[in-house]
Amino acid sequence: MAKLTRRSATENAANADALLLLSHVQKIISLSADEATLFTSCLESKVVKKRTVLTREGEVCRSSLFVVDGALKSYLYDGQKDEHVVSFALSGWWIADMQSLIYQKPGKLLIESIADSRLLSLSKEKQEMLYKEIPQFERFFRIITEKALVASQQRIINNLTLTAEDRYLHFMEKYPFVLECAPLHNIASYLGMTPEFLSKIRRRITSRAT
Amino acid sequence: MAKLTRRSATENAANADALLLLSHVQKIISLSADEATLFTSCLESKVVKKRTVLTREGEVCRSSLFVVDGALKSYLYDGQKDEHVVSFALSGWWIADMQSLIYQKPGKLLIESIADSRLLSLSKEKQEMLYKEIPQFERFFRIITEKALVASQQRIINNLTLTAEDRYLHFMEKYPFVLECAPLHNIASYLGMTPEFLSKIRRRITSRAT
Repeated sequence: MAKLTRRSATENAANADALLLLSHVQKIISLSADEATLFTSCLESKVVKKRTVLTREGEVCRSSLFVVDGALKSYLYDGQKDEHVVSFALSGWWIADMQSLIYQKPGKLLIESIADSRLLSLSKEKQEMLYKEIPQFERFFRIITEKALVASQQRIINNLTLTAEDRYLHFMEKYPFVLECAPLHNIASYLGMTPEFLSKIRRRITSRAT
Repeated sequence: MAKLTRRSATENAANADALLLLSHVQKIISLSADEATLFTSCLESKVVKKRTVLTREGEVCRSSLFVVDGALKSYLYDGQKDEHVVSFALSGWWIADMQSLIYQKPGKLLIESIADSRLLSLSKEKQEMLYKEIPQFERFFRIITEKALVASQQRIINNLTLTAEDRYLHFMEKYPFVLECAPLHNIASYLGMTPEFLSKIRRRITSRAT
């Protein structure tokens, strides 16, 4: 009986997560009750501890992940010691190795949780099925992808035009939660600087603030 | 009479350009004859000389540009002397200040031709009309935007993981036409290095090849 209760609590949490994502979707497109049910039935709930690897390099990426709560990072690992952090994803964001997902070829990125996280996974197969059954999902993902492209281009622009200190200040503003849970060397890697240089910048900012 | 002939030659070229873009579109989605006619009627042909500014910073970007022939660059100008090149677009590519186009706010980027170019312009207004009249265009632009996102992420990955020399070698392979027509300082800016450092790399590569 206790086992049943625990399972239904997990199921309730998964349902609540799916409804949260549904509310995000319905800000962009209108779905009938049947369409909403079909959509939520495509989602798979995942609850993971910090430092869980969700996608490995060399494997074909088969799903997009939506972060309900927590945070993930995508990165390249050079086989020696260096991680090159490509992106962070916080609550309300989608993440995937897009190149591997789109072309269905072995990927280069690892995706890993940097905090305990609740996720929803949408497989490529089910996403393609949604495009066929509910063509409005073309619109939803077109708009989501445009926003991701703008963010990616903004990162390139910041790297080209901002000083290292301004890049860090911008990061502090945009990703306060990542500052709490990611190791310093991950943040330095994302910003394209060494951990030593980032420490120097942080000391300079702290000494100015005190 | 001569004037009429010249105008009809220009019109024929514009029609040929629109048909070329239509063939790109029809590789991804199937259109009826009426839909194809509606799509091509939305395109505006532009023939521009090298160094024509097509979008200025501070203005709201109102259209996407498709390069039929030639090449464009998008860049930020810091008001002093430095141009920060964000992207190049060659034949068969789309370009826009995406942030300005999507959110309809004043943009930060300039878009300029780096060679004599033939372009097709699709206004945001007409693009939105196409989404309503021919919802398949949601699919077309979803797929195009996904590919642009992959390319943007690949550029971030290259900047994080490749040496300056490898970034240049990769650029030579991907953009041979840009090497012919863009000034050295634009290529250096795109690759995130100084023109002096790029010259040093080029000399090193040339000396190894001879």
